[in-house]
Amino acid sequence: MARMLYDLAGAEPERRFSPYCWRIRLALAHKGLDVETVPWRFAEKAAIAFSGQGLVPVLVDGETVVSDSWRIATYLEEAYPDRPSLFGGPAGMALTRFVANWADAVVNAGLARLIVSDIPAHLDPGDLDYFVSSREKRFGMKLDAVTAGREERVAEFRQALHPLRMTLRTQPYIGGEAPDYADYAVFGGFQWARCVSRFPVLEADDPVAAWRGRLLDAFGGLARRAPGYDG
Amino acid sequence: MARMLYDLAGAEPERRFSPYCWRIRLALAHKGLDVETVPWRFAEKAAIAFSGQGLVPVLVDGETVVSDSWRIATYLEEAYPDRPSLFGGPAGMALTRFVANWADAVVNAGLARLIVSDIPAHLDPGDLDYFVSSREKRFGMKLDAVTAGREERVAEFRQALHPLRMTLRTQPYIGGEAPDYADYAVFGGFQWARCVSRFPVLEADDPVAAWRGRLLDAFGGLARRAPGYDG
Repeated sequence: MARMLYDLAGAEPERRFSPYCWRIRLALAHKGLDVETVPWRFAEKAAIAFSGQGLVPVLVDGETVVSDSWRIATYLEEAYPDRPSLFGGPAGMALTRFVANWADAVVNAGLARLIVSDIPAHLDPGDLDYFVSSREKRFGMKLDAVTAGREERVAEFRQALHPLRMTLRTQPYIGGEAPDYADYAVFGGFQWARCVSRFPVLEADDPVAAWRGRLLDAFGGLARRAPGYDG
Repeated sequence: MARMLYDLAGAEPERRFSPYCWRIRLALAHKGLDVETVPWRFAEKAAIAFSGQGLVPVLVDGETVVSDSWRIATYLEEAYPDRPSLFGGPAGMALTRFVANWADAVVNAGLARLIVSDIPAHLDPGDLDYFVSSREKRFGMKLDAVTAGREERVAEFRQALHPLRMTLRTQPYIGGEAPDYADYAVFGGFQWARCVSRFPVLEADDPVAAWRGRLLDAFGGLARRAPGYDG
């Protein structure tokens, strides 16, 4: 049975824009594991019902089914202990949990307020109503209102990245000399933004942009080859 | 030669209020290393001139002199590899750097804007002018103006702790099942605030407050026994 990853896609099957699926795409590459990705849309709950829940990423690895990006990453670490580590041991795994939570609360939440209104143009028609109404409900306003004033507000987002910027002054990756799951957890959000929006979330000379560039190039340009906007 | 740590003190020699010195107090306890702490005031540059710079913490360990909290922590890890690890390996050390930078940029900077005006009352008279003028210059305003409106602004500080709060939902410490240097790096700021201010920086039912309590109790109550304000 082939290894398969159900991966959020837009109207174009190759536009894969889930930050959480990107974490796992890079984690699989880090482990040197081949995977067949299956484009999946929000409306296709039936296609992943076998996983017992309704969100991607879902990994099917032989007889094993795992959902939720954190659970998939820890599964990969446990199932493939002889491949390069995603965490560098139990303490590293605990610390990575903090980094992933920072990515969720600061990076992904901040990016959403800058780019969410650019997503509907890329969605499959069958996903449009669901996406817009669920996100309008979450934000309590129209999506255009969420991103209004982003040219001014982006400075605050960039400021919130300061802990990452400070870290990149003394080491090339959050994981140290080489990237690991902490890097992929943060990078996933930037790749999400790149896949759906031309809005420049980083300044070109930001060390965070250079780090993003190194991750776009990692694993033979896996992330850079994906449809998206560079800038 | 005894192991000695130059440790910032207030007018009372036992009021030790540097967040960076607290990181090292706990790191030494984690390693099970005895230390004689030497109360030090900002004006006593001559007393630590042997370290080649003018800030504490300064650790004197036999023939070795180390300053800067991060460099001291990594020195301890290297010099005492058979004692409990502060980082859990090279990947853990790299990830801890990110956590320490988050502590500096978010926790300590945020706490300063809530409690800095409470510090002068605890200072040695010889430090008062230096401290007030250097901090007023840094903030560009009087210290009372820095902390003005803190009763309202504290909500924003508590919100910024969300990555830590999320992490504590699934593990008791940032380091996992037991605390490590990442915990001490963040805790140092809370201990600083506790040593000088009655202002309640956390709500009593915040999981972050429970975590702070566990660290106050660690190593036989090392941090809780220090002069400060509980609440």
